[in-house]
Amino acid sequence: MNRRTFISTTSFAGMGAMLPFVPTFKYLNQMEITDILENLVVLFQGDSITDAGRHRAAYYANQPNGLGQGYALHAATNLLGKFPARNLKVYNRGISGNKVFELANRWEEDCLMIKPDILSILIGVNDFWHTIDFNYKGTSKTYETDYKKLLERTKKALPNTKLIIAEPFVLKDGTAIKPEKWFPTFKEYQETSKKMAKEYDAVFIPYQSIFDEAIKHAPTSYWCPDGVHPSMAGSYLMAMAWLDAFMEIAAQ
Amino acid sequence: MNRRTFISTTSFAGMGAMLPFVPTFKYLNQMEITDILENLVVLFQGDSITDAGRHRAAYYANQPNGLGQGYALHAATNLLGKFPARNLKVYNRGISGNKVFELANRWEEDCLMIKPDILSILIGVNDFWHTIDFNYKGTSKTYETDYKKLLERTKKALPNTKLIIAEPFVLKDGTAIKPEKWFPTFKEYQETSKKMAKEYDAVFIPYQSIFDEAIKHAPTSYWCPDGVHPSMAGSYLMAMAWLDAFMEIAAQ
Repeated sequence: MNRRTFISTTSFAGMGAMLPFVPTFKYLNQMEITDILENLVVLFQGDSITDAGRHRAAYYANQPNGLGQGYALHAATNLLGKFPARNLKVYNRGISGNKVFELANRWEEDCLMIKPDILSILIGVNDFWHTIDFNYKGTSKTYETDYKKLLERTKKALPNTKLIIAEPFVLKDGTAIKPEKWFPTFKEYQETSKKMAKEYDAVFIPYQSIFDEAIKHAPTSYWCPDGVHPSMAGSYLMAMAWLDAFMEIAAQ
Repeated sequence: MNRRTFISTTSFAGMGAMLPFVPTFKYLNQMEITDILENLVVLFQGDSITDAGRHRAAYYANQPNGLGQGYALHAATNLLGKFPARNLKVYNRGISGNKVFELANRWEEDCLMIKPDILSILIGVNDFWHTIDFNYKGTSKTYETDYKKLLERTKKALPNTKLIIAEPFVLKDGTAIKPEKWFPTFKEYQETSKKMAKEYDAVFIPYQSIFDEAIKHAPTSYWCPDGVHPSMAGSYLMAMAWLDAFMEIAAQ
């Protein structure tokens, strides 16, 4: 047969190791049976991973090119496709290169005015990375202080908004990563994001362990070539985990 | 409670009419249990619906911005996310405004050289539309002749390639559509695409009936505002149907 053949004719019995990689999420499969009330506004906030090439001029809700090409678009597409007639509004306001204080600088327009019912934040990789590559002087303590300030401000302005806080992650074998420079310090940032989620009653998405599991099934080059920016496959994983977090809020 | 509240506290018993819209596809749920062999090359071909804003310079396989923001990106993201370590390569070569003869003009570079194992074609809406709005002189007979010629050429050059042929569709309530000008003539084009699928042993995707079903659950403005170009929700539907067709090939 050709090197490219179609489908394995192996019986299921022999297929164990070849099964597709389907991560198990706790709430995700409830999407089929859970109802969502109308008019929810969902906002994705973060850095380049969230931005993912979105057209900044497409700032209205639910514009595909305004959602970028990453996990936010994929999660939004699933939400809108699965829940028609619910008038969900999804925005992406991630901006490449952002650290927490840069979110704060644009928080009025890019979060508070939007009044999200569900606010999802993935921030932190640049708060550390830029200390290595761009001479940024912040520490994990700065990250924590800035993050707390941002969340306090958010809670005060939008007391009913539900939060999703995602863990910043890195894949050590990524082409842009010098692991000896990242660890153990980067772990402090990851711990801080987890702590923020706990203190501010957010659903936490443990992206580091999700990618750690994924690279048992395919190499870093498949999921996240440079170690920071996910491939399409990586965006898929991230979106599934995000939808799981969304459904955890839905199940509350 | 606020106009935006989270999740219905209604018991499931009372939720019938509020259940999410989950179209039923025959093969799609087999994605969890079916294996795909390595090195498959998948190519999406078509017009603006397939193009969906892709960056033409991102012509390598599996580049998110090269896949656009439509159903092709969403289908590819699912494939790559669900089947790691299979080395799937997915290309999008849809170009806005194309009719069948314009696919033919670039078929050598944009199909034959890529040597897809699975070739998906969605074409025909412009073959009709441009007769109303751009003084194009082709008829449904031209569409059929051109389409046959393209498929003959493809079969000859790539005898082992499996085909997916998607039905061109239109939503009558779309802002760009004057239904009295589209029907009944546009139906001839739809019938032709179905006939091509049958004659060339392709899996057929009946997009018209899929959208006809969807608009029972939410209006045209939700799925496909102008009647031709789908929203994110519309792209989701299209991607699910496409994945179903892919799995039908997989099940063969």
